[in-house]
Amino acid sequence: MGAAQDRYHSVRKLTGDLANPLSDADATIQSMPDASPAKWHLAHTTWFFETFILRDHVPGYRHYRADWPFLFNSYYEAEGARLARAARGMLSRPSLADILDYRAAVDAAMDRAIGQLSPQVLALVDLGCQHEQQHQELLLTDILHAFSLNPLEDALWPRESGAPHGQPGPLSWLDGIEGLVEIGAGTTGGREFAFDCEGPRHTALLHSHQIADRQVTNADWLAFMADGGYDDPRLWLSDGWAWRQANDIQAPLYWADGENGWTSFALSGRNPVDPAAPVCHVSFYEADAFATWAGARLPTEAEWEAAAAQHDPDRGNLLDRAGDIRPRPAQDAPSFFGDVWEWTGSAFRPYPGFRAADGAIGEYNGKFMSGQCVLRGGSCATPRGHMRASYRNFFYPHHRWQFMGLRLARDMA
Amino acid sequence: MGAAQDRYHSVRKLTGDLANPLSDADATIQSMPDASPAKWHLAHTTWFFETFILRDHVPGYRHYRADWPFLFNSYYEAEGARLARAARGMLSRPSLADILDYRAAVDAAMDRAIGQLSPQVLALVDLGCQHEQQHQELLLTDILHAFSLNPLEDALWPRESGAPHGQPGPLSWLDGIEGLVEIGAGTTGGREFAFDCEGPRHTALLHSHQIADRQVTNADWLAFMADGGYDDPRLWLSDGWAWRQANDIQAPLYWADGENGWTSFALSGRNPVDPAAPVCHVSFYEADAFATWAGARLPTEAEWEAAAAQHDPDRGNLLDRAGDIRPRPAQDAPSFFGDVWEWTGSAFRPYPGFRAADGAIGEYNGKFMSGQCVLRGGSCATPRGHMRASYRNFFYPHHRWQFMGLRLARDMA
Amino acid sequence: MGAAQDRYHSVRKLTGDLANPLSDADATIQSMPDASPAKWHLAHTTWFFETFILRDHVPGYRHYRADWPFLFNSYYEAEGARLARAARGMLSRPSLADILDYRAAVDAAMDRAIGQLSPQVLALVDLGCQHEQQHQELLLTDILHAFSLNPLEDALWPRESGAPHGQPGPLSWLDGIEGLVEIGAGTTGGREFAFDCEGPRHTALLHSHQIADRQVTNADWLAFMADGGYDDPRLWLSDGWAWRQANDIQAPLYWADGENGWTSFALSGRNPVDPAAPVCHVSFYEADAFATWAGARLPTEAEWEAAAAQHDPDRGNLLDRAGDIRPRPAQDAPSFFGDVWEWTGSAFRPYPGFRAADGAIGEYNGKFMSGQCVLRGGSCATPRGHMRASYRNFFYPHHRWQFMGLRLARDMA
Amino acid sequence: MGAAQDRYHSVRKLTGDLANPLSDADATIQSMPDASPAKWHLAHTTWFFETFILRDHVPGYRHYRADWPFLFNSYYEAEGARLARAARGMLSRPSLADILDYRAAVDAAMDRAIGQLSPQVLALVDLGCQHEQQHQELLLTDILHAFSLNPLEDALWPRESGAPHGQPGPLSWLDGIEGLVEIGAGTTGGREFAFDCEGPRHTALLHSHQIADRQVTNADWLAFMADGGYDDPRLWLSDGWAWRQANDIQAPLYWADGENGWTSFALSGRNPVDPAAPVCHVSFYEADAFATWAGARLPTEAEWEAAAAQHDPDRGNLLDRAGDIRPRPAQDAPSFFGDVWEWTGSAFRPYPGFRAADGAIGEYNGKFMSGQCVLRGGSCATPRGHMRASYRNFFYPHHRWQFMGLRLARDMA
Repeated sequence: MGAAQDRYHSVRKLTGDLANPLSDADATIQSMPDASPAKWHLAHTTWFFETFILRDHVPGYRHYRADWPFLFNSYYEAEGARLARAARGMLSRPSLADILDYRAAVDAAMDRAIGQLSPQVLALVDLGCQHEQQHQELLLTDILHAFSLNPLEDALWPRESGAPHGQPGPLSWLDGIEGLVEIGAGTTGGREFAFDCEGPRHTALLHSHQIADRQVTNADWLAFMADGGYDDPRLWLSDGWAWRQANDIQAPLYWADGENGWTSFALSGRNPVDPAAPVCHVSFYEADAFATWAGARLPTEAEWEAAAAQHDPDRGNLLDRAGDIRPRPAQDAPSFFGDVWEWTGSAFRPYPGFRAADGAIGEYNGKFMSGQCVLRGGSCATPRGHMRASYRNFFYPHHRWQFMGLRLARDMA
Repeated sequence: MGAAQDRYHSVRKLTGDLANPLSDADATIQSMPDASPAKWHLAHTTWFFETFILRDHVPGYRHYRADWPFLFNSYYEAEGARLARAARGMLSRPSLADILDYRAAVDAAMDRAIGQLSPQVLALVDLGCQHEQQHQELLLTDILHAFSLNPLEDALWPRESGAPHGQPGPLSWLDGIEGLVEIGAGTTGGREFAFDCEGPRHTALLHSHQIADRQVTNADWLAFMADGGYDDPRLWLSDGWAWRQANDIQAPLYWADGENGWTSFALSGRNPVDPAAPVCHVSFYEADAFATWAGARLPTEAEWEAAAAQHDPDRGNLLDRAGDIRPRPAQDAPSFFGDVWEWTGSAFRPYPGFRAADGAIGEYNGKFMSGQCVLRGGSCATPRGHMRASYRNFFYPHHRWQFMGLRLARDMA
Repeated sequence: MGAAQDRYHSVRKLTGDLANPLSDADATIQSMPDASPAKWHLAHTTWFFETFILRDHVPGYRHYRADWPFLFNSYYEAEGARLARAARGMLSRPSLADILDYRAAVDAAMDRAIGQLSPQVLALVDLGCQHEQQHQELLLTDILHAFSLNPLEDALWPRESGAPHGQPGPLSWLDGIEGLVEIGAGTTGGREFAFDCEGPRHTALLHSHQIADRQVTNADWLAFMADGGYDDPRLWLSDGWAWRQANDIQAPLYWADGENGWTSFALSGRNPVDPAAPVCHVSFYEADAFATWAGARLPTEAEWEAAAAQHDPDRGNLLDRAGDIRPRPAQDAPSFFGDVWEWTGSAFRPYPGFRAADGAIGEYNGKFMSGQCVLRGGSCATPRGHMRASYRNFFYPHHRWQFMGLRLARDMA
Repeated sequence: MGAAQDRYHSVRKLTGDLANPLSDADATIQSMPDASPAKWHLAHTTWFFETFILRDHVPGYRHYRADWPFLFNSYYEAEGARLARAARGMLSRPSLADILDYRAAVDAAMDRAIGQLSPQVLALVDLGCQHEQQHQELLLTDILHAFSLNPLEDALWPRESGAPHGQPGPLSWLDGIEGLVEIGAGTTGGREFAFDCEGPRHTALLHSHQIADRQVTNADWLAFMADGGYDDPRLWLSDGWAWRQANDIQAPLYWADGENGWTSFALSGRNPVDPAAPVCHVSFYEADAFATWAGARLPTEAEWEAAAAQHDPDRGNLLDRAGDIRPRPAQDAPSFFGDVWEWTGSAFRPYPGFRAADGAIGEYNGKFMSGQCVLRGGSCATPRGHMRASYRNFFYPHHRWQFMGLRLARDMA
């Protein structure tokens, strides 16, 4: 079995493991238009291989079901009409078992084909694996959101032992690189794979600044709350304050105030907030207000990447297997990867020289380059091996349901 | 086994039969806030017996699950806080199997208790059975709506053989009763059971009128459409025209125009519209516009009841068992019951002398007496035995997802 | 000058008097889609005469401005396209002075024509005068709403002296008529004019009941509020409670709670709530909840009309001239007319035998016969001479900006 | 009269001239929450001087009206509660004449005070003048939007003679600066005044690129339309396509398709679209789709500023006086200023080292630094003398009612 096949198998298996605790009903529900049913993630990632590998490059391949591409195309205009995003939650059929059969059938076809594929098509297989890894994380964040709306607050996996770690250690400021740096992914960018939006590799100019050696913790956030951070409009961006007011935001998503203090809901159920762990499930608006309150700011994505490039992207609290997946208190040595995605101060816009690919694949990232903010570094739900310093994730500034937190930076004028 | 127990068993069994084709996922999804998941119907009807019989009248009974009443209370303010209606679709858990266990446990407790209940409490058991029959119909209409939003358009049951019946026979006008009539349910109202809103029995005054001997058919409706009925604002109520414009309504719900003419989607899948069958899934606004186009009007509920009281409420296309449930071409002799609920021209308001009962049960119907219109006669999804001439169903004028149609009336001045 | 001309002049003059305190800007603003600018009322009533009298029945008449009918047609589909209702507030031009010139020009043309009009056309002139009287009241309620949104809370007219009258006298119950009564307007219905929806005159059946001899007062309402009436869902219709929650309703419209108790805003500014005056600016939902709290109900429109028919419709606090227009404490003898429109428990639906007229005039009332509730009796802003026992006003159950209150009734079983 | 006083007078006078054609009603209406009434602009700019100069720095000054700051504070949280933005259109009072009196009174107080003010306070006077110049442009764009919703489509000023100029000349590409450049306003930034968000002056890195020597014209835009640009989702950003679909966008704002081709509405009324003039009233989404269609992109703000810094900011079609204000065909020599604001590809975010000022003034720009895009270069409605290369304007990507167009750039890899 070649490396590509090996990797394909390993990625596909992890997806199945993550979905394993889900019933057919769990895998069917859609909690909001931004989220998709687990079943849909399982099928859409399969559709991706079926469409861009088997249909396009394997002579004689016939679609597993003729009417399923309409159901499982996400947003590719070039692939034609598709089910409205908000209607994905109506797919009680096909069943979860039907979808798992679909996965097995496509896997079998891929096994038969993969040895004959050209390097260009193998690059698409690699893209499909990376794509599926992205959906592994989305599957987790989406099912967490759905479960949070069920008053029973079931856990997907049991909580692993280990009490909260008390208070976090002090924050230290690292001197940021100043001057010209190379960022982004390119032909000499290290790991082979990168998404289109990570390139071209190019020179960026950094101004004098410092960056924190760790993420903002729950203890930090509780101090912000205790100081009235959610009630002082002068700390907030105008859009952020309007959002906070319209939605009566008073704490991170999934937090609840109880007799014994704040708790948060996670894939392993509801538990007390751990002061030493990174704060999670905060919006860009909240992150920006926190930074203003702290007399600091969010780093730009170039500052972040320049700092992170000196660290091992496979080190940190990333996803290895199904289980009690959550941000955890920082280890001793600074890491820039894992636990929570970090909001940067940068809008998601094309790099100099960026040009989208032709055809449907060209819709992968480029058309989302307005209105969204860049997040960096991966989270506890990002598969280990999927991360790299140049990785650009992006969400709207009000989004909170991903594993999102922040790290501070500051100008050194 | 006494009559009450017999009836209880029979009602509970039919609910199970209707839900039988549903997977856990099918039973979980909620297609709109007006509709509820099948699973929820199965549990809510059980909660009704558990709360108002077992909890209130069986010493020592303990709730099956302490946190489930919060999930399965529908709208009873007197029963405390409850899950928001629009969030019912998030209940992937408890599973369908869990709910069926709940049903079995409550049934067992009811079996043990039913012999010891006082007549007053047996009346509540009867109310619970009638309540469950209402939810049998809602379960069907709600799952039909959900399935209609899935592009696969699966059928719940196979289509029974029998081709469309060609054209319907001509409509005849029956002379309506004029003068004082007794309507509504009361102590001498015939069948023992009636909902609170059906009484008190009282005198009503009817003016000179005629009423059609059959419901409006699909053939009639196609003529209305061919004559531009959906495009002439002068035929429509002002609210109706605004609704038609905002939603671009051009045909009854579930209809689609194809190469071979109009089809409609039903519990047995998509099939050609049968000209001879009663038109179904039209709103009050559409029904009123049709009547105006036809130079007629909708009957008042008193006119309808006076005419229907002369007919057998157990005769007609009503629900007997799970299967290919749908409106069918009229039989030879006129019937006022079954096939489709008939929109009347009457607002759902209290009868003279109506007073809601004390406590939670008093919320059953009274608080819905604004903004809704009365429908009469039951449908193909209404259990046989549940219907009576005094029965008042009610929905908002834009609603279409029930089995709703109409019958014409006209003034004889 | 004939009687028709005399009446025309008198109606037109009062409209001008009511608008007299308004600046061009005051007359231009539109506070919500339900309300219209004063300028628009001034022009629309003029358009009505211009269209249905001068254009249709005066040979050679040419429109004052060719493009103004598009602006000032309200809702007559038969008269073609028109400005969207919500856009009426964009008509800074034509100016108020232009509109007053338009009024003068149409008045002059009417003066020239009126002597030659046939009786049928004179009936349309009468309809136009009645129509304009309706808009006199709307002009006042709409400008009151607009001024209420300006923090300066200017008064249109000075407050007339006269302190609040302390507490109202006790309520007495009048025995209602029972049995068959004649209601509605017809050829023998008394006053000559009536709107189409008031007929045909017909027999109605009343059940045993009593009706209060006076309207509900502010003192009554304050007792309801003090007893938690706004916070007990069991008192409210389901739609009403949803409305109350969504809008955080805690008192009648225009009320504010201050250091010295409740005040209300009126055409003569903000003043303390007068306990003895009828409560005003409450919705049907509030009125119904109050009646439930009081152990009573709203009267049906037939009950109301049967009782009111014994009273002089020209007696009561009705509109005679511009000035401090507001509900006032009841006089000694019971009156059924004036002060505040009284919500009834009846939906606005057609009477037996009702048939809308042909053409645009047929759209006058008939197309509004869904979703609205009947109010009876006129208010302090209804011109004296415009009222009659058969008069049916109608608004949606959440509306509050008219001069709306209530009178209680109760069943005598 | 010193230079500050002279400048103050000149700015204040132009505001009055621009508002001169407006009636009280014209000056009162608000066409959407994003726009403000002309009257409000006249008063708010006056409130700015009254608050930050007279109240804060002139001993003994008393507010002209105690309750007006509540009406005319725009968005300064530090200045306390204020009228909701969407309610500004309810201010029929104070009248336009009252507001002009207010302006005169504050002008008189300023005249008395200005000779005694410290340099620090004179800097605030300068800020107030710049602020008022911004509102001069907003007054024009807002009244244009309001007039566009009135079917009469009145012109504020007569159209000046001069027929459309036929086709524009060919576009030429200018080689952009590559490498490190200094941008932004600072102590050595040229003109004395700049808004806070224009600084600090800092080094930016430009990559190899070209920039067009003129703005995109109506002729260019008509070619995009003829090629189906509005109907091909592959040209659009995802958010842009959703916006285009939801609003059925098919042409720039104010355009209408008629028998003789496209026309557009402007301050001087409706006229044929001039092919040679810059396209105006397009959103960022449209601008981006156009650039994609053209095989180009929008310039970054740094690229734009580096190119524009070589041009005279006082040259171009800028605002000198009231009259027929509109984008006009380009003159012979390239200019980077005037006609239409040019959308850049840059999000409005803080420059390196930016820090908002303390107090209310610190809210001027900083809190708007999310979700908006930078526009550069000023328009035909921007006062001459107000513009500079470092000027950063910002609007949301769907906004179209400003004088907005675009200039193309492209990568040179």
